[in-house]
Amino acid sequence: MPHDHAMLTRRDMLRGAAGGMLAAGLANPLITAAQDAPKSDRKIGWALVGLGRLTMGELLPAFAQTKHCKVTALVSGSPDKAKKLAEKYGVDQKSIYNYDNYDEIRNNPDVDVIYIVLPNSMHAEYTIRGAKAGKHIFCEKPMAISSDECRQMIDACKQANKKLAIAYRLRYEPYNQTAIQMVHEQAVGPAKVIVADAGFNLPDPNAWRLNKELAGGGALLDIGIYALNATRYLTGEEPIEVNALIQENPTDPRFKEVEESCVWQTRFPSGILANCSTSYAYNWQNRYRVIGTNGFFDVDPFLAYRGLRMSVKRGSAEPEEVQLPQVNHFAAEMDHFSQCVIEDKEPLTPGEEGLMDHIVMEAIYQSAREGKTIKL
Amino acid sequence: MPHDHAMLTRRDMLRGAAGGMLAAGLANPLITAAQDAPKSDRKIGWALVGLGRLTMGELLPAFAQTKHCKVTALVSGSPDKAKKLAEKYGVDQKSIYNYDNYDEIRNNPDVDVIYIVLPNSMHAEYTIRGAKAGKHIFCEKPMAISSDECRQMIDACKQANKKLAIAYRLRYEPYNQTAIQMVHEQAVGPAKVIVADAGFNLPDPNAWRLNKELAGGGALLDIGIYALNATRYLTGEEPIEVNALIQENPTDPRFKEVEESCVWQTRFPSGILANCSTSYAYNWQNRYRVIGTNGFFDVDPFLAYRGLRMSVKRGSAEPEEVQLPQVNHFAAEMDHFSQCVIEDKEPLTPGEEGLMDHIVMEAIYQSAREGKTIKL
Repeated sequence: MPHDHAMLTRRDMLRGAAGGMLAAGLANPLITAAQDAPKSDRKIGWALVGLGRLTMGELLPAFAQTKHCKVTALVSGSPDKAKKLAEKYGVDQKSIYNYDNYDEIRNNPDVDVIYIVLPNSMHAEYTIRGAKAGKHIFCEKPMAISSDECRQMIDACKQANKKLAIAYRLRYEPYNQTAIQMVHEQAVGPAKVIVADAGFNLPDPNAWRLNKELAGGGALLDIGIYALNATRYLTGEEPIEVNALIQENPTDPRFKEVEESCVWQTRFPSGILANCSTSYAYNWQNRYRVIGTNGFFDVDPFLAYRGLRMSVKRGSAEPEEVQLPQVNHFAAEMDHFSQCVIEDKEPLTPGEEGLMDHIVMEAIYQSAREGKTIKL
Repeated sequence: MPHDHAMLTRRDMLRGAAGGMLAAGLANPLITAAQDAPKSDRKIGWALVGLGRLTMGELLPAFAQTKHCKVTALVSGSPDKAKKLAEKYGVDQKSIYNYDNYDEIRNNPDVDVIYIVLPNSMHAEYTIRGAKAGKHIFCEKPMAISSDECRQMIDACKQANKKLAIAYRLRYEPYNQTAIQMVHEQAVGPAKVIVADAGFNLPDPNAWRLNKELAGGGALLDIGIYALNATRYLTGEEPIEVNALIQENPTDPRFKEVEESCVWQTRFPSGILANCSTSYAYNWQNRYRVIGTNGFFDVDPFLAYRGLRMSVKRGSAEPEEVQLPQVNHFAAEMDHFSQCVIEDKEPLTPGEEGLMDHIVMEAIYQSAREGKTIKL
């Protein structure tokens, strides 16, 4: 078992091997260098665009856990909310913008990075305007509502000579990084099949995520993208064939415009097959299983903000739980991007990463619509 | 939670609710009456055709655990093996047949039922000859190697006025029966998605299962059929759409004739979607998860001969293990069929059940071959 060293079981933890494992994980080029020793104490200034639940509940509090990030501006359509949050997080009241005067952010030297946390259909516009304002762009997933928009966003940032990254936070935390490493090193033998399920119950029929114009799609774009992205980062490959079935469920008042559920399957060039599902109609589905010739491992949950878990079954042995450090995903991804700015490096999850997910998601919708396998 | 009574958790077991649960399960028309109180002490005489690993390792020993079955004849191409097994299990040496004089079994009044345990491609011939010999037929899964053969088998048994059942043993044991009940009663809310994976590593390149002529197909026909059948019995519905991808892997000497792996997905009339996988290249995959709007449950393993396990997650509660009686699947299914003979009832898993699996498996192969969704 030459790859045993690549896996961190509870037993290994007891042996104190955790540090070694994590270091091994970081040696994989597929894995971020976010936890590398910082080469500078410089703090990059971030503007947050959109003050919804994610910004208030996760992003603003995460700054305290970063090494290289400070929040220096807020952009919102709600001046009162922005004022209060600015006070709470020490943002200069002069650095509050609305959607009309957003472009004036170009004149704010305290802002290096703009983090787009808006409904999906606004990502492209605010990314392009932000790049034109001379700022680096960090954009929530899904990157946009179409691959065309993604290409425009990439082009705009290139033309402005600004960096662009998509907030694929799971690429910046140890469980998913270790999973990548384990597939790479064939820790359960060569991977054969990946099963990934990502869904949550969205109870509010008035949520913007259920509005086709704002969201661009249903469960697939919002939560299924985690399963899709996982199959891509786990394999380190791009799918070459896609099948899909979509369940519309228009009799449910929530699903008049976007799909309720979707199952899709992909083939990767090495022969790995993946079965994925997503839905807005059920909770507690965020797990994947990688099945190899010598065993399998689960990361379940794999996409929760905290409390990720992994277990590995090798051969006929009982499954063993793998314990890794729990990090703040948002702090980790923001610190990584700040470091990229400081050191002028390419981010781990650039715009091209978001573009590829959109290309595959478009193939998923096309397969379901046309009833055929889409080749990529 | 009106359906709570339908689920048997460890806590319920401690409360002594097991009997009630099982009784409730048996009230479902989808579930066998195999455990019903017998109305007769009569023992039905069974002839076993094919003395391979399953017959020797499981079926012959299982007779001791039946109430209504006795083994009264053996059919084999290996006279020495048959002689020894006849001695061991108390079969009259005059009731040993080979494949040439098999039809003479018609003259053996001790044989009521013939159990076909041959390679798949021989099921049709030996079923039809057995029915013509005036015996009821119990046939291993997969029923045959094509839906056409299945229809011929059904017709032959009808013409002979003999019963025909397929050995879908999981329909006769409490874990899978309870799972059916739980979907039926919406124990985790209406089911939305079923994920079922069934595979095992087949190391011997000379196994008949890898010979296309004998097996009729690869992993799908032999082991994937468990996942397919599970999605059908769990939903109580028949799939209306099928997508599939097949991985051939002809560079592996085992897979020169049949596929290595297959993933498929189905839509059921109620809107339930299913994602399934199968393979001959990995072990330890036999589980399904039923995802409902209010939770999910796993049966893992669901197809092992013994040691099945179930856990249920309801709402935000921690998953709870469900403990049910472990029964001998083979004894249960044989007893059920003997009772059907005694009481002149239709079996729970008649030939039509095997036929439907073959229709869907043909759609799976067709979808993979033609790259399109097959509508059923």
